[in-house]
Amino acid sequence: MEKKVAIYRKEHFNAAHRLYVPEWPDSRNLEVFGKCSNPNYHGHNYELVVKVTGVPDAKTGYVINLSDLSDLIWKHVLVKFDHKNLNLDTKEFAHLNPTAENIVLVIYEILREKIDPVLGLSVRLYETERNFVEYPA
Amino acid sequence: MEKKVAIYRKEHFNAAHRLYVPEWPDSRNLEVFGKCSNPNYHGHNYELVVKVTGVPDAKTGYVINLSDLSDLIWKHVLVKFDHKNLNLDTKEFAHLNPTAENIVLVIYEILREKIDPVLGLSVRLYETERNFVEYPA
Amino acid sequence: MEKKVAIYRKEHFNAAHRLYVPEWPDSRNLEVFGKCSNPNYHGHNYELVVKVTGVPDAKTGYVINLSDLSDLIWKHVLVKFDHKNLNLDTKEFAHLNPTAENIVLVIYEILREKIDPVLGLSVRLYETERNFVEYPA
Amino acid sequence: MEKKVAIYRKEHFNAAHRLYVPEWPDSRNLEVFGKCSNPNYHGHNYELVVKVTGVPDAKTGYVINLSDLSDLIWKHVLVKFDHKNLNLDTKEFAHLNPTAENIVLVIYEILREKIDPVLGLSVRLYETERNFVEYPA
Amino acid sequence: MEKKVAIYRKEHFNAAHRLYVPEWPDSRNLEVFGKCSNPNYHGHNYELVVKVTGVPDAKTGYVINLSDLSDLIWKHVLVKFDHKNLNLDTKEFAHLNPTAENIVLVIYEILREKIDPVLGLSVRLYETERNFVEYPA
Amino acid sequence: MEKKVAIYRKEHFNAAHRLYVPEWPDSRNLEVFGKCSNPNYHGHNYELVVKVTGVPDAKTGYVINLSDLSDLIWKHVLVKFDHKNLNLDTKEFAHLNPTAENIVLVIYEILREKIDPVLGLSVRLYETERNFVEYPA
Repeated sequence: MEKKVAIYRKEHFNAAHRLYVPEWPDSRNLEVFGKCSNPNYHGHNYELVVKVTGVPDAKTGYVINLSDLSDLIWKHVLVKFDHKNLNLDTKEFAHLNPTAENIVLVIYEILREKIDPVLGLSVRLYETERNFVEYPA
Repeated sequence: MEKKVAIYRKEHFNAAHRLYVPEWPDSRNLEVFGKCSNPNYHGHNYELVVKVTGVPDAKTGYVINLSDLSDLIWKHVLVKFDHKNLNLDTKEFAHLNPTAENIVLVIYEILREKIDPVLGLSVRLYETERNFVEYPA
Repeated sequence: MEKKVAIYRKEHFNAAHRLYVPEWPDSRNLEVFGKCSNPNYHGHNYELVVKVTGVPDAKTGYVINLSDLSDLIWKHVLVKFDHKNLNLDTKEFAHLNPTAENIVLVIYEILREKIDPVLGLSVRLYETERNFVEYPA
Repeated sequence: MEKKVAIYRKEHFNAAHRLYVPEWPDSRNLEVFGKCSNPNYHGHNYELVVKVTGVPDAKTGYVINLSDLSDLIWKHVLVKFDHKNLNLDTKEFAHLNPTAENIVLVIYEILREKIDPVLGLSVRLYETERNFVEYPA
Repeated sequence: MEKKVAIYRKEHFNAAHRLYVPEWPDSRNLEVFGKCSNPNYHGHNYELVVKVTGVPDAKTGYVINLSDLSDLIWKHVLVKFDHKNLNLDTKEFAHLNPTAENIVLVIYEILREKIDPVLGLSVRLYETERNFVEYPA
Repeated sequence: MEKKVAIYRKEHFNAAHRLYVPEWPDSRNLEVFGKCSNPNYHGHNYELVVKVTGVPDAKTGYVINLSDLSDLIWKHVLVKFDHKNLNLDTKEFAHLNPTAENIVLVIYEILREKIDPVLGLSVRLYETERNFVEYPA
């Protein structure tokens, strides 16, 4: 039987964002999103952990070359989001509230298209050390 | 298909405890629980990670409002256990050995009653950086 | 001889900022500040460590009550900067580039006025886990 | 219904290794394994997290005595690998490329034989803070 | 000119304690020490960092053998305080309030007697990740 | 009066090494250096923290551009030591025992020559999370 191993790569990016529902008045946004609805944005050091699952190659002992995985995350995720304002500078969050939940779903979709379908994928995102999300659950 | 995301909130509390089986002699308690059976108690900085799983709301992008989750953990868990002697100051461990396993089971039961049943729940508890538990497994 | 002890309290805040010199063209700001000059801002989880130095009180064994110190940092620093855009939402950085160096100097000045002059003070600020500053040096 | 709890113990070891496929020329090893193929070896602080799953004992509240688990990891894993050159000093990696994936599989097999079959087991290995693996996936 | 290098060793211990001034009524102890005055104790995972300063030996390249330093901390500090109730189980805190400040002073005095006077010494103690002390300041 | 601020940059490298005095028999090396004298080497994830002290520039608010500092550490330190065997692959430790103390002294000397003499410099090196050194002390 083939033995599946999970391999993880941790990356990070820094971004600004604001949480709000455009059709709601400021008062309701403040009620639901609290300080996170500040109209002038706030920001985070996001820590991103990408998990890839598969059977290690019999010769190399690699599930995936972590250097390739790191390059792929850089090219398709970090270039888009690092040192950006998620609401203003990205098409992904132009009309989608950049909660941690939505960010992790977006990053998963981006990476899922780029990683060999034979490999499993899941993504964890730390917004702060105390608040984080994962997809799939 | 609906996409389930896990969201995590990390909290902490400080408590004293003693591990022992009351009907056993001290010698057997010492043999099984070692230094943790010290009759005058010792203590820990417990780190608690609560994981809630569900489908993000289409409008807010939230599985659960982390501010509400944090308040709920505060009200139902931290107020009970923070800066307490688990053996002497809590009804939960008056007759239950406060091992990490039992503490995590107790906290799970408390939170399970308070969190919307449509949402999944699991709890991780760090007794030290090197010893921790999770329920469900 | 009286024995001076240092006591530290760690707090955190999340903020957006942009690094640039207003009288410089974008090209020069980009050259000097790189991605940090993004006109739409980016952000960080700032970790703040406040160090207070003094002789512990003979009766209480406290240099300073950490609960009071924490309240003071909350009231005079966190309320100003947490979940804010440092460039747009604060008077301190309306005309001062919010580099880590300048932020730590501003926080030091704020706290120095509020803490008993008999006590020593220094402040460390983490912009990321890999970039941080301290004043006085 | 019996409630299964997972309990984790974190240990560490320091080792040297080199990644390469012996029948490949140096140029191909360099292409695939990069700096990790350095013929004179490099090394890591490996962090090992062993997860054991089972139903806590009704009397002790233990899934497994962590002191016993720690001793077992020490005796069967750390003594073999700590402060060793994995390629030269161990029989396990004499003919197996010591990638993180292969190391975690080897450690799992060693521990699986020593831990009560009624208990579940999984192993996570950090090669660096940013690169880690887990088995089973 | 001889070059002084600082070398640090981090250890940890778990203990229970209660903060209070015996001649004060409970109400005043509660006012000053808050939850830390709980009569039944609470506890912490204390992290201890011992810093020794000196000129590395020309032959070995060691300021001090860290294995010896670790043994010395074990024998003279950890055996006394690990898994103990500081108020009830130690002579050092039988009549001294076990604040972080007082604990670090006591540990410094214990180690200062055991470490070669030609070497510099300072001690840092983490009561939690957010509250810590250092002596000398 | 000009205000000096310290700015820190954390980098890391992975290396193999062996501690021994060549003119000593293996038995004495084992006695003094323990497992660290293993003839086939072992290794570490070294974390390097470089501290630069100076007055922030009035216009930019920078003591030093951290991007330049990071490049400089990369070019003069990491290229030499990352994924290397310190004893075999570097001229610096061909005849110098690569203890943490000696490594931090060597890195300090390398960087001191490359950093503006008007700026203060100190270097901290973590060999493991529990063992680390700093120069100057």
